[in-house]
Amino acid sequence: MTKPLFVLNGPNLNLLGQREPDKYGTTTLADVHVLCQETAAEQDLTVDFRQSNHEGTLVDWIQEARVEASGIILNPAGYTTTSIAIMDALLAAGLPLVEVHVTNIHQREEFRHHSYVSKVANAVIAGAGVHGYQLAVQHLARLIRA
Amino acid sequence: MTKPLFVLNGPNLNLLGQREPDKYGTTTLADVHVLCQETAAEQDLTVDFRQSNHEGTLVDWIQEARVEASGIILNPAGYTTTSIAIMDALLAAGLPLVEVHVTNIHQREEFRHHSYVSKVANAVIAGAGVHGYQLAVQHLARLIRA
Amino acid sequence: MTKPLFVLNGPNLNLLGQREPDKYGTTTLADVHVLCQETAAEQDLTVDFRQSNHEGTLVDWIQEARVEASGIILNPAGYTTTSIAIMDALLAAGLPLVEVHVTNIHQREEFRHHSYVSKVANAVIAGAGVHGYQLAVQHLARLIRA
Amino acid sequence: MTKPLFVLNGPNLNLLGQREPDKYGTTTLADVHVLCQETAAEQDLTVDFRQSNHEGTLVDWIQEARVEASGIILNPAGYTTTSIAIMDALLAAGLPLVEVHVTNIHQREEFRHHSYVSKVANAVIAGAGVHGYQLAVQHLARLIRA
Amino acid sequence: MTKPLFVLNGPNLNLLGQREPDKYGTTTLADVHVLCQETAAEQDLTVDFRQSNHEGTLVDWIQEARVEASGIILNPAGYTTTSIAIMDALLAAGLPLVEVHVTNIHQREEFRHHSYVSKVANAVIAGAGVHGYQLAVQHLARLIRA
Amino acid sequence: MTKPLFVLNGPNLNLLGQREPDKYGTTTLADVHVLCQETAAEQDLTVDFRQSNHEGTLVDWIQEARVEASGIILNPAGYTTTSIAIMDALLAAGLPLVEVHVTNIHQREEFRHHSYVSKVANAVIAGAGVHGYQLAVQHLARLIRA
Amino acid sequence: MTKPLFVLNGPNLNLLGQREPDKYGTTTLADVHVLCQETAAEQDLTVDFRQSNHEGTLVDWIQEARVEASGIILNPAGYTTTSIAIMDALLAAGLPLVEVHVTNIHQREEFRHHSYVSKVANAVIAGAGVHGYQLAVQHLARLIRA
Amino acid sequence: MTKPLFVLNGPNLNLLGQREPDKYGTTTLADVHVLCQETAAEQDLTVDFRQSNHEGTLVDWIQEARVEASGIILNPAGYTTTSIAIMDALLAAGLPLVEVHVTNIHQREEFRHHSYVSKVANAVIAGAGVHGYQLAVQHLARLIRA
Amino acid sequence: MTKPLFVLNGPNLNLLGQREPDKYGTTTLADVHVLCQETAAEQDLTVDFRQSNHEGTLVDWIQEARVEASGIILNPAGYTTTSIAIMDALLAAGLPLVEVHVTNIHQREEFRHHSYVSKVANAVIAGAGVHGYQLAVQHLARLIRA
Amino acid sequence: MTKPLFVLNGPNLNLLGQREPDKYGTTTLADVHVLCQETAAEQDLTVDFRQSNHEGTLVDWIQEARVEASGIILNPAGYTTTSIAIMDALLAAGLPLVEVHVTNIHQREEFRHHSYVSKVANAVIAGAGVHGYQLAVQHLARLIRA
Amino acid sequence: MTKPLFVLNGPNLNLLGQREPDKYGTTTLADVHVLCQETAAEQDLTVDFRQSNHEGTLVDWIQEARVEASGIILNPAGYTTTSIAIMDALLAAGLPLVEVHVTNIHQREEFRHHSYVSKVANAVIAGAGVHGYQLAVQHLARLIRA
Amino acid sequence: MTKPLFVLNGPNLNLLGQREPDKYGTTTLADVHVLCQETAAEQDLTVDFRQSNHEGTLVDWIQEARVEASGIILNPAGYTTTSIAIMDALLAAGLPLVEVHVTNIHQREEFRHHSYVSKVANAVIAGAGVHGYQLAVQHLARLIRA
Repeated sequence: MTKPLFVLNGPNLNLLGQREPDKYGTTTLADVHVLCQETAAEQDLTVDFRQSNHEGTLVDWIQEARVEASGIILNPAGYTTTSIAIMDALLAAGLPLVEVHVTNIHQREEFRHHSYVSKVANAVIAGAGVHGYQLAVQHLARLIRA
Repeated sequence: MTKPLFVLNGPNLNLLGQREPDKYGTTTLADVHVLCQETAAEQDLTVDFRQSNHEGTLVDWIQEARVEASGIILNPAGYTTTSIAIMDALLAAGLPLVEVHVTNIHQREEFRHHSYVSKVANAVIAGAGVHGYQLAVQHLARLIRA
Repeated sequence: MTKPLFVLNGPNLNLLGQREPDKYGTTTLADVHVLCQETAAEQDLTVDFRQSNHEGTLVDWIQEARVEASGIILNPAGYTTTSIAIMDALLAAGLPLVEVHVTNIHQREEFRHHSYVSKVANAVIAGAGVHGYQLAVQHLARLIRA
Repeated sequence: MTKPLFVLNGPNLNLLGQREPDKYGTTTLADVHVLCQETAAEQDLTVDFRQSNHEGTLVDWIQEARVEASGIILNPAGYTTTSIAIMDALLAAGLPLVEVHVTNIHQREEFRHHSYVSKVANAVIAGAGVHGYQLAVQHLARLIRA
Repeated sequence: MTKPLFVLNGPNLNLLGQREPDKYGTTTLADVHVLCQETAAEQDLTVDFRQSNHEGTLVDWIQEARVEASGIILNPAGYTTTSIAIMDALLAAGLPLVEVHVTNIHQREEFRHHSYVSKVANAVIAGAGVHGYQLAVQHLARLIRA
Repeated sequence: MTKPLFVLNGPNLNLLGQREPDKYGTTTLADVHVLCQETAAEQDLTVDFRQSNHEGTLVDWIQEARVEASGIILNPAGYTTTSIAIMDALLAAGLPLVEVHVTNIHQREEFRHHSYVSKVANAVIAGAGVHGYQLAVQHLARLIRA
Repeated sequence: MTKPLFVLNGPNLNLLGQREPDKYGTTTLADVHVLCQETAAEQDLTVDFRQSNHEGTLVDWIQEARVEASGIILNPAGYTTTSIAIMDALLAAGLPLVEVHVTNIHQREEFRHHSYVSKVANAVIAGAGVHGYQLAVQHLARLIRA
Repeated sequence: MTKPLFVLNGPNLNLLGQREPDKYGTTTLADVHVLCQETAAEQDLTVDFRQSNHEGTLVDWIQEARVEASGIILNPAGYTTTSIAIMDALLAAGLPLVEVHVTNIHQREEFRHHSYVSKVANAVIAGAGVHGYQLAVQHLARLIRA
Repeated sequence: MTKPLFVLNGPNLNLLGQREPDKYGTTTLADVHVLCQETAAEQDLTVDFRQSNHEGTLVDWIQEARVEASGIILNPAGYTTTSIAIMDALLAAGLPLVEVHVTNIHQREEFRHHSYVSKVANAVIAGAGVHGYQLAVQHLARLIRA
Repeated sequence: MTKPLFVLNGPNLNLLGQREPDKYGTTTLADVHVLCQETAAEQDLTVDFRQSNHEGTLVDWIQEARVEASGIILNPAGYTTTSIAIMDALLAAGLPLVEVHVTNIHQREEFRHHSYVSKVANAVIAGAGVHGYQLAVQHLARLIRA
Repeated sequence: MTKPLFVLNGPNLNLLGQREPDKYGTTTLADVHVLCQETAAEQDLTVDFRQSNHEGTLVDWIQEARVEASGIILNPAGYTTTSIAIMDALLAAGLPLVEVHVTNIHQREEFRHHSYVSKVANAVIAGAGVHGYQLAVQHLARLIRA
Repeated sequence: MTKPLFVLNGPNLNLLGQREPDKYGTTTLADVHVLCQETAAEQDLTVDFRQSNHEGTLVDWIQEARVEASGIILNPAGYTTTSIAIMDALLAAGLPLVEVHVTNIHQREEFRHHSYVSKVANAVIAGAGVHGYQLAVQHLARLIRA
């Protein structure tokens, strides 16, 4: 049986749907969890869906994914532009990886444009709202089958 | 009847599948055309699929899309990082827009990381290979329906 | 009854009064806690006073403040110049916010001059020693009443 | 008989009056053409008024002006900040030259502040709306007479 | 009766016509005064024409214009690139404003290319020699009537 | 008897309460004068309250303070980011110094973030509105007593 | 029979010998064509010699060279420092390539010092005047034979 | 009895020997622990050897070292280039400190070349593989004895 | 009779000998005046010695020197690195000019290293203490005689 | 009789053919000497061929060339990007000068792209392997005859 | 028999122990020579120990080491941050290489932080005082045995 | 008896009076030698006057001066902006030091504006022509007497 997809969410994404709705919409992270599950199920895959505000915990989970997952979807949120620790963990994991951002980060402040995760991701999807997760699951499924 | 999606491809994409296959794969632009048509058909949409090496022609087509299209998918290729003319045309068009890059441009040379198109695109998809076009059609369909 | 002010302290502030006393003085963080309590009491307010070395914990507490506090005083210390996660949490909290630095960070190393927190704080007080907390409580009280 | 003034317009200016009217007003390029003709007539001059989205075509026209025109008014639009080819053509033409921008480019995005054309223009007029063309014709007439 | 236009000239412009005539021509500031008066008279306007080497005096005069003038023409000369005080005064004045430079500052030393005044001016005219003042009066008249 | 506090205000602050009220509020500089007097009186101190648009005058006053004042509160306004002359005068004065900004300068344009005055101030208070002066008087009183 | 060498010339080179003769000399592009033919003939090679002001046309021709030529000599002129589209076409062509500049670009304006073409050229010859083409033909012949 | 040396390892070092073996070799962190113990024993010293992916935990441990250790060896890994919190904790600890990197970070990506830890370390050893720990223990022993 | 040398001193130099004596020594500006007079007298020259804290006054005096002086010695102090107005006045004066700094500005803060005055001075003398004025008078005398 | 061409080679070029043969080929510097002699002989010229690892010796030789040579070919190797002393010597020599690099330095590390020698060379030839010397001799002969 | 280790010392290291003893200690270079000999002897190795103030001589010696040595220890001192010639010689030598700095260069002036030698060294040891040489010999011995 | 002043001259200064006379004048270095001798004699001092094109030789001589000289005058010429080795030697010498440049380096190319020597010199004299040496001897004599 295929190992699950790890869908990992960075800091403050637990507030999705509540925080700055004009920027992030009103869909909650629980809704995204369901959306990922349903999309994965269409591809005969399961998801392990998590969120943390702690950089170290995200590193721990990526190391866990290295052993327990068939691929990773990561929305690094506030750690996107600064975390070499997360990038190194992803490099060590060596798994298919899709990076997702709910908003188009290139239209936000200059300091959000850079991403250490992009240096190691197979694909990057930004600005497609919560549906970016759906596209990510679809693409990750294709990468895992390949 | 819904106007078609314009799928516009920038310089050298006519060589897709022949040029540097280790970087871009062996799928040709004709294959991508078919892939877009099929994906659009699933959404009851049609595509108008074009390629040009000329920045001015791309501007002309985006201005045409302004009147004739319901949305735009653009792979700006070599004009990504320099063309303010294309960005301005897209701004004037005011249509739903998805930017696609076959490769993950963030893993290539530094000068390829910046995109003027990203400043005006709804969503950006990079590194998903030719399947990025498929994801783009799916997402653009969603944007048009919304 | 008014919710308490959250007074949150970042990494190494638990060593205040012991670490580099010529730079930070000999007042301990416990003394600062008392100072904040007394100043708040004069304004008929209470404080919830905490310290952590963990960026993620500070994010968690700011999210908690979002629901439980009437305003925030934050000394982000070593996370001042790098933590977008903390800035995002503060943005999501949407509460009156005063940023405090014990020292005048503009007289220290160049890399300490920038602050992500300042981008979202109502007011910034630097270099007033531990009395900066006192001024912050006074000002925060004014903001909450307004 | 004096050769005509070439009034050359860069990419997307054909959409003037339709595109982003809050930024560019509602006057169309045809209106600007008439305005230039009338202002030139007051100075006993004629204008050859053109627009293209193609950088190469603008270079061609400037080379044509070298032989056929008595002076050039150029609104380089999207090619302002990047086209060395246009700058070189203007240098080769060696004609009196006034650069016009409808908007005050110094109040827009940072990347619009630089102009290669300004390095070779006699005068630069920005932010005077379509009336900038009128001022340009007046000044160019003075330069030609001198 | 319409309030006068304030035509304000920055440091060293009192030497116009004497200082570096190959760069600035031989017309004196008194000539420019006359030119402005005549051009304004054609528009049924009057001018209050002044020059100072003192940044603070220019700020004082702009504050005076705030109450006494219908619009401002400013040649900030040596304070162009550094004076935030002048920019703030202009912002506070909130009047129609045209910035004039006798020379094309973009063809001079790099440090002359930036202008704080351009950030708040309606229009900017550079390189048209002393006739730039004439164009400025014409345009300012149009702005005031609008 | 203790010498007075010099409260010195830079360019355009005489327009406080009139200029851009959404940014600076409606309190006038006269109100601030009263506020400073009252706060100082609570500490058995007096204030000498002045405003100038002239950098040189501010330098003169700081030199005067060197002899006549017990401490300085300075809102350098438009000279904040450029005046080395003011910084040098403050260094020479060698008095307790609190820098005040009505707005949070870190949320304004990039060019307002730097302050030469901060390099020599004991404390910096920004974004607390006109109450920043009140906090400054309180803190300066503490510094003078120490 | 060996395929011809493509000798491609960028914008404004059609004016060679007329434009700025002190910088570029008086030899015309037609003379250069003859020079290239003669030098190639000595090596039993032929040349296909072209010039265009259009970036897109240069890209088209390089793609044509990919099939029809044995090697490329390119003087990219005004597109040297900005055209990633041309660089990508050259990469796709995968042919022996010599870049030529009539002048020593390193002695001209700073913005002319960078070349995207140099990143993919076998050899770069600058400052040898029109004889640089001759040297380029000689060296390209050697590369083709190798 | 001498307090132990704290040997602290940053994020992802728990994967040493498994992750990217061509870069880091096949020795595991457990092997490094033994190597440190043996080298310390030769110097009549003991080690307290730890690893964490959490920046905050590393700060906690450095604060613990302040009281419990005679010196620190730190491999900050992914936190090398960004953690001011760790640097501040080390400053507060005031203990002899040797920084170790398994690889020569100066031969890796540009963003790995800077180290906040180097600003407070007595010595820095990079590129000596796991033997760098051995050299570090030897040097730290010398520092402690001095 | 030869016109006098203007010896002009910028902001805060009136405090020479009192302010930061370890950096500037104990000689007062009055002493420097005498030193200049005596040195000039040896060369049969006279000096007109002045000091101002006002940038505009310094510009006024340089304009006066243009008519009344045979040469200028300028210690621009705090206006060294920012005053284009002073540089422009010096350019207009077109007199022999020696720039003096009491301290070696290259050993002070980075922001003091640049000088607009140096761009137009014949000679620059820094770090020779008040004797730098003496050397300047000697050299200026030589320039005037030449 | 015409003075010889000085062919001067910088540091480590004595190892040509042995050092990194995949980058520099297997031809030795002795072979290059012969190649230069033969090419010069075809032009009725002689060469004085030298190599040194010492910057000062290269300066000495260029000064000697000033008197003894008719032109210089220089491969500055490791001193290309840093030696102002060599550039100044070349300026003083005032001889026809061709700069040669065996490899295309623009495809190597960023720090090798800049050349002080290019600022004073007539022509620059890079990436043509050891045949670059041959082209250089041909071109230098043409310059000397002219 | 194994070839000796070359221990090469750059400019001013002959003054070690005399020059700035608070920064470099009182051990002389002769002492370091003995220390290296003794440490090498423990590993059955010999050292050839040299010092020069001449960049070219260091290049010569590294080329000599290429043939005569089994490994190199280099303290490049003042040539650390600028010498590409030395870096190229080391590359050509292709020997095991350890770079040593007596002080922790990362705590000194910014311009000392960069090292061209680090780009080609196996290991870098900084800040361990003269004992850094000892550690370097130990590590180089290990590299040679491997 | 007082030790001599070392007057050390860097690369290409042996060509003084011959090289670029419009920039450096026609006085030769031998003339400068005499000028220094005469000026020193007036102060009862002697000079040891030398020139070298070799950075290493200049370092050697500065080390010699450390023992044999009472002060140093250095014109570092082409090594001004790059030689840390010379700066370190000067630091080690610890002697009174005056830096001289014949031309005003601040009016030449940007890359000549920085000087490592200025960081350690007591005084810097630039642009006074060969008379700068005279002023330097006078000032150095004063420093030695002090």
